[in-house]
Amino acid sequence: MREHRVAVVGGDGVGPEVTVEAAKVAHAAGERFGFRLATSDYDLGGDRYLRTGEVLPDAVEDELRGHDVILVGAVGSPDVPPGVLERGLLLRLRFEFDQYVNLRPVRLLPGVPTPIAGLTPDGCDLLVVRENTEGLYAGAGGHLYRGTPSEVATQESLNTRRGVERVARFALRKAAERRGHLTLCHKTNVLTHAGDLWYRTVEEVVAEAGEVTMDYAHVDAMCLYLVNDPGRFDVVVTDNLFGDIITDLGAAVQGGLGLAASGNLNPDRAAPSMFEPVHGSAPDIAGTGAANPAAAVLSAALMLEHLGETDAATAVERSVGRVLPELGAMAGPQMGYSTSQIGDRMAGLVAD
Amino acid sequence: MREHRVAVVGGDGVGPEVTVEAAKVAHAAGERFGFRLATSDYDLGGDRYLRTGEVLPDAVEDELRGHDVILVGAVGSPDVPPGVLERGLLLRLRFEFDQYVNLRPVRLLPGVPTPIAGLTPDGCDLLVVRENTEGLYAGAGGHLYRGTPSEVATQESLNTRRGVERVARFALRKAAERRGHLTLCHKTNVLTHAGDLWYRTVEEVVAEAGEVTMDYAHVDAMCLYLVNDPGRFDVVVTDNLFGDIITDLGAAVQGGLGLAASGNLNPDRAAPSMFEPVHGSAPDIAGTGAANPAAAVLSAALMLEHLGETDAATAVERSVGRVLPELGAMAGPQMGYSTSQIGDRMAGLVAD
Ligand SMILES: CC(C)[C@H](C(=O)O)[C@@H](O)C(=O)O
Ligand SMILES: CC(C)[C@H](C(=O)O)[C@@H](O)C(=O)O
Repeated sequence: MREHRVAVVGGDGVGPEVTVEAAKVAHAAGERFGFRLATSDYDLGGDRYLRTGEVLPDAVEDELRGHDVILVGAVGSPDVPPGVLERGLLLRLRFEFDQYVNLRPVRLLPGVPTPIAGLTPDGCDLLVVRENTEGLYAGAGGHLYRGTPSEVATQESLNTRRGVERVARFALRKAAERRGHLTLCHKTNVLTHAGDLWYRTVEEVVAEAGEVTMDYAHVDAMCLYLVNDPGRFDVVVTDNLFGDIITDLGAAVQGGLGLAASGNLNPDRAAPSMFEPVHGSAPDIAGTGAANPAAAVLSAALMLEHLGETDAATAVERSVGRVLPELGAMAGPQMGYSTSQIGDRMAGLVAD
Repeated sequence: MREHRVAVVGGDGVGPEVTVEAAKVAHAAGERFGFRLATSDYDLGGDRYLRTGEVLPDAVEDELRGHDVILVGAVGSPDVPPGVLERGLLLRLRFEFDQYVNLRPVRLLPGVPTPIAGLTPDGCDLLVVRENTEGLYAGAGGHLYRGTPSEVATQESLNTRRGVERVARFALRKAAERRGHLTLCHKTNVLTHAGDLWYRTVEEVVAEAGEVTMDYAHVDAMCLYLVNDPGRFDVVVTDNLFGDIITDLGAAVQGGLGLAASGNLNPDRAAPSMFEPVHGSAPDIAGTGAANPAAAVLSAALMLEHLGETDAATAVERSVGRVLPELGAMAGPQMGYSTSQIGDRMAGLVAD
């Protein structure tokens, strides 16, 4: 029987709750489609940091590296200073495991309420391919005269031809598999240096292939289009920060963070890829059963896809698509369904 | 009679058309409230660049400096490479005239259709105070090995204590005049250097005053909130790039770019301030009379406010508020009203 090694990082707040459901549904898919997920739990995140001062010990990173994939719930706690867990855990894994693609589908599923008047599933099915190892996320920069009236702080976006080219090639492949259209999202008219590298590279990659059409949107215009006409997009390739911004907006458009999945991919499988819902740890609702596990379950579907378990991925997606309309506007006890009941229902559908 | 010197830069595409209407309405306000606008037209923008190769001759900049304010339509032409007009004209004026505040109201006016289901004017009245002379807009950065596989491109965000503090103080004053709440929008968990300076500075400025409450939103979350719950914001202070992004989104929320006004302020009046609609030159509809002049007219209202003509500013805003519901979903000939008819109607209401 095929076996895939999965490191599970539940994390903080609602993270562990939604991850349990994602794993439950993925296991059910394994039983049906004939593979085994060998899961090991890792205690990482804000709670561990506050308890022990540790974010990601090197030994733990080495263990994680021994897995095929990592399934993350959410990390973050109000008591941890900004940046500690982000830089020390999530971004460290994205960078050190060279997960250079952050894949974020923005799809309005049938029966899911969206805040955008008149939007239908037909008009909202795009895939954001976010560069995930460069740009402003490099962390480059510093201070001079910190804490004085002369203080200066810099933050630098670092972009390489190799980095842009590989994510552009990935996006191109996705576009070719889908509706054949690729949009570059950047801000070339202001970020003239980085924008020049991005534009030239994406244009060249698209031209070589010859079957995909390309267009371009400034990030500010992109935000407007995502509200007014998301149907114009097929695959969108963009830099790390712009990808972060437009996919949270995309999450709002597709019905909320409870539905937004993501995969941090090392497409060459040279190191584990990592799958996580776009939402945070939502400490305010932790423990209440009010968290919607759909985003985590959809992230598990992306994980199965990456593992080559395509039929299983499709079955998991379908189960989410069937359960969501039953929930109405929101999950949670107030709707009569708890996090685990929703997971049970999805797992049941997958097993059938 | 009070006189204000206004440089008018119609620019490209629909720019001249909407600017004519904005000036018309502002003149009408002058007649009613007892001041004169001495306007001089300047031919700048993509057309001039394509004709003469000139973007902003130094002599013209000197002339502009001799005015109290500048009223801009839109600059930009598909035939001009990205960055030329932005850097050479708009950003140059913002920087050289030290227009360190970019003021962008995001308000849903009664009777205006918004794409957000269920949103009402009560739930959408915020003011974005965008830093306008620093950050990634400094243009810092460069290339190494351009055009080779080893190419590296950098783009640097430059932030100073002085720059952040002055825009924070401006935002604080606005918040105190309004509902007493200020939100900092940044990405402190990733842009740790710049974010640290921003957070500390805004927190200190707010603490000194003691009457305004402060909270914080990451730029990605901000985009989500702008769709799901814009009513939670009063004044938002943010950096140059984030301000650019969230105000285009804000424009979508408030009913479209046809309604979004902006002022580039030198609050100390050491140099002219500049007022421009957020929309671009929209070459596809230039000359058809389909452009809605509301954003330009509302920008003129911000201009009158800056000139101390508060009653006139209020009258202009009111006239826009009265005319918009008459237009239905969109302006333009298909609705039976052309750009100039809308301007006439607004001017008529102001004169009354
Ligand atoms: C938590 C944070 C570092 C992260 C990011 O900015 O990438 C998050 O917002 C995301 O989108 O995955
Ligand atoms: C034209 C461009 C330079 C400008 C900006 O990015 O500031 C525009 O998008 C705006 O918002 O005024």
